[in-house]
Amino acid sequence: MNTFTPSPLQPVVHAVNWREGSCVLLDQRKLPREETYLECRAYEQVVDAIKTLTVRGAPAIGIAGAYAVALAAEECLRIDNLSARSRAFENALNEISSARPTAVNLKWAVDRVAKRVGDNLDVRAAERILEEAHCIHREDILCNQQIAAFGASLIPADSEIITYCNTGDLATGGIGTALGVVKEAYRLRKVSRVYPCETRPVMQGMRLTTWECQRNGIPFSLICDNMAAAMMRRIKTIRAAIVGADRIAANGDVANKVGTYALAIAAKYHEIPFYVAAPSSTFDLQTETGAFIPIEDRSPEELVQALGENRPSFPMGSINPSFDVTPAELITAIICEKGIISPPSKENVSKILG
Amino acid sequence: MNTFTPSPLQPVVHAVNWREGSCVLLDQRKLPREETYLECRAYEQVVDAIKTLTVRGAPAIGIAGAYAVALAAEECLRIDNLSARSRAFENALNEISSARPTAVNLKWAVDRVAKRVGDNLDVRAAERILEEAHCIHREDILCNQQIAAFGASLIPADSEIITYCNTGDLATGGIGTALGVVKEAYRLRKVSRVYPCETRPVMQGMRLTTWECQRNGIPFSLICDNMAAAMMRRIKTIRAAIVGADRIAANGDVANKVGTYALAIAAKYHEIPFYVAAPSSTFDLQTETGAFIPIEDRSPEELVQALGENRPSFPMGSINPSFDVTPAELITAIICEKGIISPPSKENVSKILG
Repeated sequence: MNTFTPSPLQPVVHAVNWREGSCVLLDQRKLPREETYLECRAYEQVVDAIKTLTVRGAPAIGIAGAYAVALAAEECLRIDNLSARSRAFENALNEISSARPTAVNLKWAVDRVAKRVGDNLDVRAAERILEEAHCIHREDILCNQQIAAFGASLIPADSEIITYCNTGDLATGGIGTALGVVKEAYRLRKVSRVYPCETRPVMQGMRLTTWECQRNGIPFSLICDNMAAAMMRRIKTIRAAIVGADRIAANGDVANKVGTYALAIAAKYHEIPFYVAAPSSTFDLQTETGAFIPIEDRSPEELVQALGENRPSFPMGSINPSFDVTPAELITAIICEKGIISPPSKENVSKILG
Repeated sequence: MNTFTPSPLQPVVHAVNWREGSCVLLDQRKLPREETYLECRAYEQVVDAIKTLTVRGAPAIGIAGAYAVALAAEECLRIDNLSARSRAFENALNEISSARPTAVNLKWAVDRVAKRVGDNLDVRAAERILEEAHCIHREDILCNQQIAAFGASLIPADSEIITYCNTGDLATGGIGTALGVVKEAYRLRKVSRVYPCETRPVMQGMRLTTWECQRNGIPFSLICDNMAAAMMRRIKTIRAAIVGADRIAANGDVANKVGTYALAIAAKYHEIPFYVAAPSSTFDLQTETGAFIPIEDRSPEELVQALGENRPSFPMGSINPSFDVTPAELITAIICEKGIISPPSKENVSKILG
């Protein structure tokens, strides 16, 4: 296992936080125009925030899910009957876990904090849950810094980088996964410009990644998703594409925001390295290949929203899979806090994850 | 040269027309919500309409350009001094020709009608110009029907098809190029569904192609551009991707709406045939390869418009090339009214174009 000094970078904003008994979420639906925070005092609010993309990004929804369990535990303590309390808590766990299906970090985090309950959900158990949630949050911050250092080591000098969706402060507890690598490589003066793909239909690239680049002073040129291949052909200093992940199968297949697969194919065609950056909590070793990863279908309404007043009066038949699967063969390396998995394969994944 | 019975399909709407001394344009910026027509009595109005995408699509702007020359000729006849008249007319020709740089059909059509002037721009010359413009319009209708027949012969039974941008009634004088092929293959019951890519940033796929499919009763599922590759992997009945063209170089390289290149790479990766459908007026045999085709850069504002009220307050660095070039090696065949060029190469292009 390679070791690296973690990046000293810090997040400029907190997508998820815990403050005085509340889970505080930056409302990402309102970015880049408005920076408003939502104080969630009930776990149902967090579940709703996850479903509506108020908070999004696999590691961030993991942390939010863990805090939601802490809120659920507090609520359930008010139920005196122990078996009713336990049933209510189980229901809450299921509801939180299943708020979104693809990112495995959510289920991973909920399972991890729930294990701390022990025999009975009592005041002590609730304290342990909150402690574990804080631990997941702190670990993610460190993971991000380690990923940034490992990732930046792969970026050559004088690079420009294409990235996809949002994988920065807004998607994690810390400085981000893929965008964390970009920030660190920029700090080390290896990267001069980033090309965020806008990321249709929810525009996480246009709304969130540009906002983070702006906050971090990193030069950027926003592009439509469909322009990435043409940019790879035109701009010879684009030396890498880097993305995050929502779930990684045991063989290194990666589920990530829809469009990742197309970007990986384009990178392969241009012989540009294609990197995935994600914490080890994004690996789902029980899932053998990407074919078994559940893909969330979201409302087709997300597509036509972009037309505003000009939306059609006829019913718009459309499909909206929120994620796609990139096979390991298209991925140059997966970067996690434990090291660099290159090339991704069942053997190499288990070697690094231990 | 293969011969085929042209498709009997007719357009359901006219993007460009000539009525009582005016060039009448369907205002495509307002689609799909509103069907309004713009009556242009001065050539400058047509130039403006071409620049603002009120009328778009390579063959349609060719026809509009030809009618604009007819309007310019009428205007210039009011100038008594012959050399001043001639200078004014030359200026108008230049202005019309250069309204948009990439689609060669515009320059081709303007040159073709201008040739009919002869020695002096007089009343007779103006009549010949209008006659030639009508001729270009009528020819395009026939071209479309021939392309549809040739193209449909390439589509296997039980197909679903991916298409890009808008290449139907709204982009041509007739039933369209690539979308004309889809309509004809649907009429022949070879195609059961079309997947229009939305086509960022101007959304010609979302706004125009879905509208045409709806009008023609063709089942469709709108997708984001970034989903096409994932659909090719997921849906085994997608047996072709077909697009139009704005300019085709002598070697078969194709300039078309940005995103075409990425779609062609994805089709290659999935071993799905990738077809280009365009009239012979879209070929520019003076241009050796795609590298020499001028690519229009449009305002970056086109990208952020999709955010509506939620646009950022910081300056959004973005780039907006309106077209890209797909190398001949990624194209299975180019379909024009004279036959099928397969595989596209300098030799095969000149064989079919004669």
